[in-house]
Amino acid sequence: MRCDVAGMDKLHEECGLFGLLMPESVKAAWFTSVGLIALQHRGQESAGIAWEQDGKIAFHKGLGLAGEVFTPDVLCGIEDSRLAIGHVRYSTTGSNNTLNSQPLITLHSKLSFALAHNGNITNAAELHQSLEESGTVFSTTNDSEVINMCIIRQMLKTDSVEAAVLKAAQTIQGAFSLLIMTGDKLIALRDPTGFHPLCMGRLNGGVVFASETCALDAVGADFERYIEPGEMVVADSNMKVTSYPATVPAKRGLCVFELIYFARPDSIIDGESVYHARQRMGRFLAKQRPVDADIVCPVPDSGMEAAQGYAQESGIPLGTAFVKNRYIGRSFIAPSQLAREQAVNIKLNPLRASVAGRRVVLVDDSIVRGTTCARIIRALRKAGAKEVHMRISSPPFLYPCFFGTDIDSSENLIAHNHSVEEIRQMIDADTLEYLSIENLEKVKSLETTQFCNGCFSGVYPVDTGHTHLKEAFEDK
Amino acid sequence: MRCDVAGMDKLHEECGLFGLLMPESVKAAWFTSVGLIALQHRGQESAGIAWEQDGKIAFHKGLGLAGEVFTPDVLCGIEDSRLAIGHVRYSTTGSNNTLNSQPLITLHSKLSFALAHNGNITNAAELHQSLEESGTVFSTTNDSEVINMCIIRQMLKTDSVEAAVLKAAQTIQGAFSLLIMTGDKLIALRDPTGFHPLCMGRLNGGVVFASETCALDAVGADFERYIEPGEMVVADSNMKVTSYPATVPAKRGLCVFELIYFARPDSIIDGESVYHARQRMGRFLAKQRPVDADIVCPVPDSGMEAAQGYAQESGIPLGTAFVKNRYIGRSFIAPSQLAREQAVNIKLNPLRASVAGRRVVLVDDSIVRGTTCARIIRALRKAGAKEVHMRISSPPFLYPCFFGTDIDSSENLIAHNHSVEEIRQMIDADTLEYLSIENLEKVKSLETTQFCNGCFSGVYPVDTGHTHLKEAFEDK
Amino acid sequence: MRCDVAGMDKLHEECGLFGLLMPESVKAAWFTSVGLIALQHRGQESAGIAWEQDGKIAFHKGLGLAGEVFTPDVLCGIEDSRLAIGHVRYSTTGSNNTLNSQPLITLHSKLSFALAHNGNITNAAELHQSLEESGTVFSTTNDSEVINMCIIRQMLKTDSVEAAVLKAAQTIQGAFSLLIMTGDKLIALRDPTGFHPLCMGRLNGGVVFASETCALDAVGADFERYIEPGEMVVADSNMKVTSYPATVPAKRGLCVFELIYFARPDSIIDGESVYHARQRMGRFLAKQRPVDADIVCPVPDSGMEAAQGYAQESGIPLGTAFVKNRYIGRSFIAPSQLAREQAVNIKLNPLRASVAGRRVVLVDDSIVRGTTCARIIRALRKAGAKEVHMRISSPPFLYPCFFGTDIDSSENLIAHNHSVEEIRQMIDADTLEYLSIENLEKVKSLETTQFCNGCFSGVYPVDTGHTHLKEAFEDK
Amino acid sequence: MRCDVAGMDKLHEECGLFGLLMPESVKAAWFTSVGLIALQHRGQESAGIAWEQDGKIAFHKGLGLAGEVFTPDVLCGIEDSRLAIGHVRYSTTGSNNTLNSQPLITLHSKLSFALAHNGNITNAAELHQSLEESGTVFSTTNDSEVINMCIIRQMLKTDSVEAAVLKAAQTIQGAFSLLIMTGDKLIALRDPTGFHPLCMGRLNGGVVFASETCALDAVGADFERYIEPGEMVVADSNMKVTSYPATVPAKRGLCVFELIYFARPDSIIDGESVYHARQRMGRFLAKQRPVDADIVCPVPDSGMEAAQGYAQESGIPLGTAFVKNRYIGRSFIAPSQLAREQAVNIKLNPLRASVAGRRVVLVDDSIVRGTTCARIIRALRKAGAKEVHMRISSPPFLYPCFFGTDIDSSENLIAHNHSVEEIRQMIDADTLEYLSIENLEKVKSLETTQFCNGCFSGVYPVDTGHTHLKEAFEDK
Repeated sequence: MRCDVAGMDKLHEECGLFGLLMPESVKAAWFTSVGLIALQHRGQESAGIAWEQDGKIAFHKGLGLAGEVFTPDVLCGIEDSRLAIGHVRYSTTGSNNTLNSQPLITLHSKLSFALAHNGNITNAAELHQSLEESGTVFSTTNDSEVINMCIIRQMLKTDSVEAAVLKAAQTIQGAFSLLIMTGDKLIALRDPTGFHPLCMGRLNGGVVFASETCALDAVGADFERYIEPGEMVVADSNMKVTSYPATVPAKRGLCVFELIYFARPDSIIDGESVYHARQRMGRFLAKQRPVDADIVCPVPDSGMEAAQGYAQESGIPLGTAFVKNRYIGRSFIAPSQLAREQAVNIKLNPLRASVAGRRVVLVDDSIVRGTTCARIIRALRKAGAKEVHMRISSPPFLYPCFFGTDIDSSENLIAHNHSVEEIRQMIDADTLEYLSIENLEKVKSLETTQFCNGCFSGVYPVDTGHTHLKEAFEDK
Repeated sequence: MRCDVAGMDKLHEECGLFGLLMPESVKAAWFTSVGLIALQHRGQESAGIAWEQDGKIAFHKGLGLAGEVFTPDVLCGIEDSRLAIGHVRYSTTGSNNTLNSQPLITLHSKLSFALAHNGNITNAAELHQSLEESGTVFSTTNDSEVINMCIIRQMLKTDSVEAAVLKAAQTIQGAFSLLIMTGDKLIALRDPTGFHPLCMGRLNGGVVFASETCALDAVGADFERYIEPGEMVVADSNMKVTSYPATVPAKRGLCVFELIYFARPDSIIDGESVYHARQRMGRFLAKQRPVDADIVCPVPDSGMEAAQGYAQESGIPLGTAFVKNRYIGRSFIAPSQLAREQAVNIKLNPLRASVAGRRVVLVDDSIVRGTTCARIIRALRKAGAKEVHMRISSPPFLYPCFFGTDIDSSENLIAHNHSVEEIRQMIDADTLEYLSIENLEKVKSLETTQFCNGCFSGVYPVDTGHTHLKEAFEDK
Repeated sequence: MRCDVAGMDKLHEECGLFGLLMPESVKAAWFTSVGLIALQHRGQESAGIAWEQDGKIAFHKGLGLAGEVFTPDVLCGIEDSRLAIGHVRYSTTGSNNTLNSQPLITLHSKLSFALAHNGNITNAAELHQSLEESGTVFSTTNDSEVINMCIIRQMLKTDSVEAAVLKAAQTIQGAFSLLIMTGDKLIALRDPTGFHPLCMGRLNGGVVFASETCALDAVGADFERYIEPGEMVVADSNMKVTSYPATVPAKRGLCVFELIYFARPDSIIDGESVYHARQRMGRFLAKQRPVDADIVCPVPDSGMEAAQGYAQESGIPLGTAFVKNRYIGRSFIAPSQLAREQAVNIKLNPLRASVAGRRVVLVDDSIVRGTTCARIIRALRKAGAKEVHMRISSPPFLYPCFFGTDIDSSENLIAHNHSVEEIRQMIDADTLEYLSIENLEKVKSLETTQFCNGCFSGVYPVDTGHTHLKEAFEDK
Repeated sequence: MRCDVAGMDKLHEECGLFGLLMPESVKAAWFTSVGLIALQHRGQESAGIAWEQDGKIAFHKGLGLAGEVFTPDVLCGIEDSRLAIGHVRYSTTGSNNTLNSQPLITLHSKLSFALAHNGNITNAAELHQSLEESGTVFSTTNDSEVINMCIIRQMLKTDSVEAAVLKAAQTIQGAFSLLIMTGDKLIALRDPTGFHPLCMGRLNGGVVFASETCALDAVGADFERYIEPGEMVVADSNMKVTSYPATVPAKRGLCVFELIYFARPDSIIDGESVYHARQRMGRFLAKQRPVDADIVCPVPDSGMEAAQGYAQESGIPLGTAFVKNRYIGRSFIAPSQLAREQAVNIKLNPLRASVAGRRVVLVDDSIVRGTTCARIIRALRKAGAKEVHMRISSPPFLYPCFFGTDIDSSENLIAHNHSVEEIRQMIDADTLEYLSIENLEKVKSLETTQFCNGCFSGVYPVDTGHTHLKEAFEDK
């Protein structure tokens, strides 16, 4: 019986990006590894860094956490450099191999470059077929490689990298925050909708790009600005930074799940503080359906900020319902003789002294399949909790995502198949309340912020192509 | 520049113990590994398990976390058994090798056994010399081995394991919670003072012993009782459990640092809930020196429960001041080009959105050298905190420990060399308050509880031998 | 001071090939690994196997010996299959990485296949450039990849694999013995000159191809015939074997170094017994320049068969001059404090009891740089040899090879820069005799056999392209 | 089906010893590893080196070949030193673990030392029991540890290491060539019978001891003399060398199997050249039973020197019957689908071109079980040999060895259960001839040489204790 420690029934982001270009040679790979460690929550299955070495592109990639792939030994063996980009990745099980790790390197006489991608290309299958038919052979099964190949095709017609990347970007559809490095340039680019975040900072005269601001903090860079949807920013070896703004107007749509769960609470995304947004979700939950209770507790670690907001709004004291064991390795497998219900206690032990005889409000960010949620509530009751009121800081998860979030098939989504009351019974909560879509919209603090909430509403900011697209790329 | 991730300026416990004897063969090593993972906070440097195999003692030990030493592969390769004991260990750097890992195995024609020890023997040097002079050759540099050798010496005079262990226990002094397994018996024993915890549970008709109750929870065992100071409990292959109570009265003295920091908050130690004790410490701190502030924040993860108590007593809302990166491996080393002050941000990033412009009460369990504390406060101020009020849920740490806690030398202890006001200035806090010894005594909930608070008061429940003893065993 | 154990101043072949197609699923990867171990002398730096799995191509490759890459664990994890090909490779240091290991896998919607290549493509640079310019992106720096890409280009115009491979073969020039597997076919092909060997055998109703017959022996296959120069042989899933003979007449030219050194003595190559050819080389040497001596000794292991021939022709008894230590790992490095001259003794210890006071004829296959030869003779003299008469079973090595043999640059070739008499003095032999080119031609036993002896004569059977070609591919 | 590559039905020696004491610090561990690689044929299962570091004893041991345990990385990490000893070991499967690897280290306040042992103690069980009963606890299951413990017991009564070692040597019986190092002395000692070899050399003013002279050659040391049976030689830190000759006269008995098979042909043992001894065995065989044949071939590699002697005496030319594949790793396992008879071909391929149609004299050193011999002859016949005449350069192996050679149980010894004619039929040889015991005695070149040939004659130079002794130590 595998005790899923990395995920435990959560949605998964696909990627984190980090890159820097410095005026002089520094431990660029080391800085990048620090940035990737700060972005590790965005992908734990593989990590890779490409760096400039004598004008060429060197790289190191591997399966595992950034700190496992980039050990001190590995980092010590990498020469100083001015330029590097890095990537952490989540992938579906079948194709989780080093070959598919990013950055994806392309060596070609017209242009050698490395590319790191966060998102999902919705017309990848069409592009793949068209490129193959005209002679391209793909070297990975990672669909991000179509972007590399589109760029090469454009390079055959021009000598300008910038032109080639912009042209290529017009042929691809879907969600793409990109970092691209050539032998002497660092390019950041975001799709017109702006699904996934990308920001820019300054460090000792150099330029830093990262998926989230927490990675700027980690390396000590000063935040400068966000890359705008549809914008391309190019830094060259003279440290000149050039912006190529979006040319065609497009509907914006920041993935709202970045605020709900993906991003780190200490990140600011397109001007929105993740910490405050989550606290506001908790406050709205407290207002949506008040309840008499003795203690408000988060499910560790995902419910913490919403629980704080709930406690502040309701006046009910914040407490601890579960102690999380942080020493369980990802490969932990519980012996089958251990009762199944018991397994959860190894990772999350209910704190009997805190919950026994009390009415508990339990706050978490989402329910996917419901099984873990049911087990957690059973464990709380066994530990003596008198009532358990479940509060979820997002709406029910009903629709697929085509833009980079790995979601379960619809038959596994509990909310796709059951009413809220049915779910309440299935997880055995005394009450259950999801944050409403209306209140979710209100958590934004800026007029200009627009969300993609397609997974809750079924309404997406762009055409998603045919609905079977996702299946077509299952092997990505 | 090494970024000390495992410790970050904390005191270290030396050991965690787990053992079980079942009526029939089970995955005993697997259960024991689960118990050790639950006790991992008590020692992260080596892990070992001994188990019965065909009436003989087999074992596997290694450096690293229990989950690293006992991988699924290793555990799958271990035959089912009725009997096993395990040990996790913290050790000083010099002698951190597999040879010194526990359980310590002794194979002798009179008695083969494995022994796991939590604590420190204060007369180990004298016993070592005396045993060597009469022909014993030691096979490790681990001073716990003197216990094994004392037991063998007693076995030469008797055929009763119980008699030999009791006799040996009378010759050793200091702190010792012990688990001993022979080919068919499991023995638990605690020194007369009761420095370190040891409890007993029941699982499917079997007997389980563990340092803390959280390990009973992890394997699904039902708590039965604590081993009393000076008591020996023997479980035999017929599942008969026999108690040999203490024969000589002794002053009790549970290590108070178990409640302050060592033990997991979900453990109950000799009847005291660690969670409630820590919340009471926070409440006393709020009463000792009230302060006007906007937010109470723990230093993650050690200050959480005291911060909750402080918030509840003071009415100031509980918030988050730092986001901890849980993906930093223990071998992480920051590049020297990264500003030293910056390094702390990689592990603990101040949550600017939460603290900027606010008066923060920051709660932690202790200050050892003060350097980390100073860095944390600087980081908070840089993130915009208007005031920082430091609250420590233990008294100043002034004296050495002879009973199993690894402490810095006195020149490194900031409180040994500076007044509280000097420390406040050194860490640049607006105010600084330690929990008083008087209030620390009051956190107990039972009449019968008696603490050893020697590290704060210099008064120990037993004679510590000559004061240079600790140095004499530095190589242990 | 590295003690070069793998090579010790020898020429290096680049590859060994093995493949099989069986009527039913067998441990195809295991058979292939046995074949590769038998061909290991042809390349020790990387090994790889591709096999059919559910109609798709799976593979495993790695650096090191076949037995190191294909451990029992790895082989046990590979499912049974009907079809597999394998490759062992020698490569120059710079680009010795797993990516460049063969078989080279190409996954394309028109054709997925694996290819193993022995030889060198002389027009690879031109093909590479032309393919890149029309949109192909290469995924390795291995110049064999141009063959894969040429095949895909042809596949875009046809649905017949056989047609595509034949067409592609017409566009490439140089030396190429190839094995190609698709999901259900196994194809063997040899360049029109027939530089490198390729043979076919039968095993339990299946078809086996291998570089040398010794690999057929290893798996218990019965030898059937040699693939003819310019011929393509295709085995399909119905076990039908179809031959596509050469269509254009070409000059034949079997690499004579296959007989002198590369091939195993128990192999038969295009009808020539390597064992007998080498014995004949020794006999010719004895006739070319007779000498009075007490004992004939081979340099282990390369001079054994020629020494036997020399002893039989001359009547001088065969003895042992050196004992070779077979336990020196390839990573062995002698401490610098060990006298340089001494280092050779660790690997080859002169047998003082055998050579002291005697006149020794020492037989080896070739001299490349001369340094090892000089050291060996010095060691013999130090061990008491009265005279040392060096005999080399090949002509002086004077010219580059463009067809798959890795040779030193000309400034390192002792014969390129010195007369035979100068060499004799440099290695301090009493006499030195190389086999003449005329006698080398006579070692063949068949009328039809024609050699490429370009490295001795400078005359090659085909146009080698411009002379700087080799340099152009230095990074291959 | 495991293809036993290390042994292939051979007897096994248990150990090789090497040690050196230099006037100044050198790469002592590196020199020792070179010595061990030269002695690797004496034991391939574990290797260990102990060296002096700051007056203390450091060590590194591991399973595998010396070159695998002492990689360049490991050796680079070892500080220079004046003093080191090393050991390579063969052991029976059950107890092949690092713990039991030698040198065995003893750390005691009276004396810390490392000991390396070649041989077998015949009264180990009695000593073990007596030591345990008086308080000693053993830390390994290696019976050589009784020597360490006897030395410590003697050290409790004296301050002289020399006296303690001599006293201890008087209490132990059997075969023991020993090297012992303290913090500043190097001691070599040989049992009174002189079963196993031990010699002394000089290197740059330092002293070197080794099991065989080939190890002196490997490090460039000059041979000085043999350690005499019963003699102890002590080198101290002033490079003073003191001899303590045997005090009690004893019958000598050099293990004759050292000359037949164990020792390297380039070693001289107690004045006897192993090379010449083996050639004489071959000459005697040719005289014992002449036969008409076309070619004399050794079984590689063990029969080479005897085959040379046979060829010289008989005038029949020496040839190659089998090509040995030197790339088969020790973990090689043939797939079960490969015909069992075929497996031998992977390692030893019959050279059809050499033997087809010819009458072959096949020479090997011994027959243990006969299965490999039968397989080899079958392979030769399958390759076309017209006649096969088997010649064995030792008498039939009939009795157990108590002195350090690992032998099969008697039911597995073909000669123990069958007449020579029966064996001939079982292995399907045309004729079979063993060297007679009388001729074996004549291979010695010195008057003073006396052999132990107990395994052939059943007559041993010393009392072997009770006959079941060997069984009693099976777990060693």
